[in-house]
Amino acid sequence: MTYRAFINLLCLGNRAVTILNRSSGRLLHIQMGIRNIASQAERGFNPAKVAVVTKMTRYEFEQQRYRFSELSEEDLKQLLALKGSSYLGLLERHNIHTRNVEHIVESLQKEGMEVRVVKRGQYDEETVRWADAIISAGGDGTMLLVASKVFNKDQPVLGVNTDPERSEGHLCLPVRYTHAFPEALQKLRRGQFRWQWRQRIRLHLEGTGINPTPVDLHEQQLSLEQHYQAHREAGSLSKPYLLPVRGLNEIFIGESLSSRYPCHQTKPWHLEPPPKHECLASYYEISVDDGPWEKQKSSGLSICTGTGSKAWSYNINKLVEQAVEEVLRIGKAQMGLDIPLSRELIEKVTDEYNKSLVFGPEEGRMIFSIREPIVNRVFSSSRQRGFANRVCVRSRCWDACMVVDGGTSFEFNDGAIATITMNEEDQLRTVLLEN
Amino acid sequence: MTYRAFINLLCLGNRAVTILNRSSGRLLHIQMGIRNIASQAERGFNPAKVAVVTKMTRYEFEQQRYRFSELSEEDLKQLLALKGSSYLGLLERHNIHTRNVEHIVESLQKEGMEVRVVKRGQYDEETVRWADAIISAGGDGTMLLVASKVFNKDQPVLGVNTDPERSEGHLCLPVRYTHAFPEALQKLRRGQFRWQWRQRIRLHLEGTGINPTPVDLHEQQLSLEQHYQAHREAGSLSKPYLLPVRGLNEIFIGESLSSRYPCHQTKPWHLEPPPKHECLASYYEISVDDGPWEKQKSSGLSICTGTGSKAWSYNINKLVEQAVEEVLRIGKAQMGLDIPLSRELIEKVTDEYNKSLVFGPEEGRMIFSIREPIVNRVFSSSRQRGFANRVCVRSRCWDACMVVDGGTSFEFNDGAIATITMNEEDQLRTVLLEN
Repeated sequence: MTYRAFINLLCLGNRAVTILNRSSGRLLHIQMGIRNIASQAERGFNPAKVAVVTKMTRYEFEQQRYRFSELSEEDLKQLLALKGSSYLGLLERHNIHTRNVEHIVESLQKEGMEVRVVKRGQYDEETVRWADAIISAGGDGTMLLVASKVFNKDQPVLGVNTDPERSEGHLCLPVRYTHAFPEALQKLRRGQFRWQWRQRIRLHLEGTGINPTPVDLHEQQLSLEQHYQAHREAGSLSKPYLLPVRGLNEIFIGESLSSRYPCHQTKPWHLEPPPKHECLASYYEISVDDGPWEKQKSSGLSICTGTGSKAWSYNINKLVEQAVEEVLRIGKAQMGLDIPLSRELIEKVTDEYNKSLVFGPEEGRMIFSIREPIVNRVFSSSRQRGFANRVCVRSRCWDACMVVDGGTSFEFNDGAIATITMNEEDQLRTVLLEN
Repeated sequence: MTYRAFINLLCLGNRAVTILNRSSGRLLHIQMGIRNIASQAERGFNPAKVAVVTKMTRYEFEQQRYRFSELSEEDLKQLLALKGSSYLGLLERHNIHTRNVEHIVESLQKEGMEVRVVKRGQYDEETVRWADAIISAGGDGTMLLVASKVFNKDQPVLGVNTDPERSEGHLCLPVRYTHAFPEALQKLRRGQFRWQWRQRIRLHLEGTGINPTPVDLHEQQLSLEQHYQAHREAGSLSKPYLLPVRGLNEIFIGESLSSRYPCHQTKPWHLEPPPKHECLASYYEISVDDGPWEKQKSSGLSICTGTGSKAWSYNINKLVEQAVEEVLRIGKAQMGLDIPLSRELIEKVTDEYNKSLVFGPEEGRMIFSIREPIVNRVFSSSRQRGFANRVCVRSRCWDACMVVDGGTSFEFNDGAIATITMNEEDQLRTVLLEN
């Protein structure tokens, strides 16, 4: 690295960037970008260059899905009808999204900002380097994708929900601004908002059989040769390697077949799978906050941020009233109590239990959740979940992956050790706007 | 159908067979097979022809996985080492399995039975027609595969666990018989055993965009053209179609990406996926025992038999002591009680709660479980699980599948309606042997 690049690096104080950008030229590039952003941060939100990253609508998705079959629009109509989906319905949602994107872009341009519109498929590091601020135009999925490439805590990321009638968009601005974006923009420029810092998860990988190359889950399956090559190149990492991603919602670890997303590059679809139970269950060892290693077998392991504690992790851990009612009923009987269980009481208990699963996005801690633990003489599930500052996981899986925010996957097989922590410098800068 | 075939069909009293075998020749074939089995059933277990279906060991799996890379045994050793797996360890487990299979085969032959050894990859309807009884030599996964092709309730299916040190094998004979198979065989011939009838789930499919062709999850992905063709041929089914499979453990319904297994033929890996939340969550409507339709959004839906109530469904529904303890603690506080919560009490309550999730394999009812329900103003999860005799599900998914025992998958997209029931004639005949 050149001396100049090294100095830039110091100014940056951001290791992540050095991983994504090894050439000093690029570092210089980023450093300049940052000067704008940093100064801008003081006097409200006033970027010169804004990238708008747009989601792919289901209409576009269906269109592309059958592109290779060379379908006409008429064929697509027919095909969707066969699938019980309404072509016109999809087209309407698509047009609503498109109109909302146009509204955002025009509003930004009216404010004299330079705008680049990028489809999520085309969104890359170059876009991130170019922009002073990035706007995600879609739902939470698009916001997660956008955030995944931003490593500079001074670079603001905003989410605008472009289909407010259909999706919630927890990570986006209040929905009313979708149709009143100029108003949002005014407030942002005048500084009538609060920065919302969202802590993120960083991953270190070490051990044997490691392949630190991220796999975009939207890519096609690698050939077995490539896979074999990857392994060849991989080998063993003596010291922990910081992976070039940050988790905004959660990290999910599990055997490919038990995870929500398969690891394409290692799945031998042309073969018999291993016996079912090995497929389903992920086998690993876990150490929380440098505590003792515990053997676990489960449908995977989730480690989430405060942001993610309202997402999938919440659904993994929350209890419904039915379960709470039964536990209280059994408990009452066991204690020989004769107190009526009112609906109100059950609701209160359920509510309090579930509230305890959620925490603030700015908090520097995580919740780990062992999903559907398998309990037998070998595997304890004494602690199915809990808060943690540092989680170490030793894989005993044989075709597993580590999935970050459902979008980026890393192989995580027997021999690999992951250290999961949080770090101030990984925070994502978003905005809080009053409704 | 010829008159002769029709008569055979009556003797059979088994609709399933008519679905798998449309030619009268085949029906005749089966009918003859059944005479043996039926008579045999009265005087204990005394089959003339036994098929032994063997599992694929992980050693074989790894070998085949890299077959196309034309690896030498030396390369494989190296590759496994890189993955942190022990070549010799895998080879040892493989040899143990192989020896146990040989032991079973020799024991059967000593008893003068005709034996066919079939690898699970080669196991097909022809084998089932040929055999009077079938022995699964592997773990529960192999047993599930074997059972999936048996539609005749008079045809006995036995499981022998060929790696008792490593797996539990709930569906297999007591492990000690793995090494003492001749003794098991004697008891079976002398009728010193009880038949264990295991109820199974049957599936009817109707609606639009239906494709009743089962997809073996071990097959490779179909091309988009094939997929498009399949849809073309599929179209709409006016009256319910009985699918050619029976569920011994469970049926799992969910979006491909939320299910444990992807639906290969519809997954457009070369494309952007839809927004994350749509991927993860499965949207459907459910009616239990002809009750009202309820909208649900969740990480899928599982419907299990008594046999399956000890398997995945149990892990989906059971509570760990940590959760029970917290519910009781909150409940106590809410009720203003001042009773100590002893470890013993918590264990008792947890135990009683979890016991209520399990029921007998012979019982003619099912448990449905909504997995990780998403609760908001639109979706209620008032009843996350319960017993049922009949479950109807209307898909609102857009790339979903219905997976039977983790082995066979059917497309299940918007417009499709599944009716899930049990029927006496679908029972699987297995044996209960004292340990």
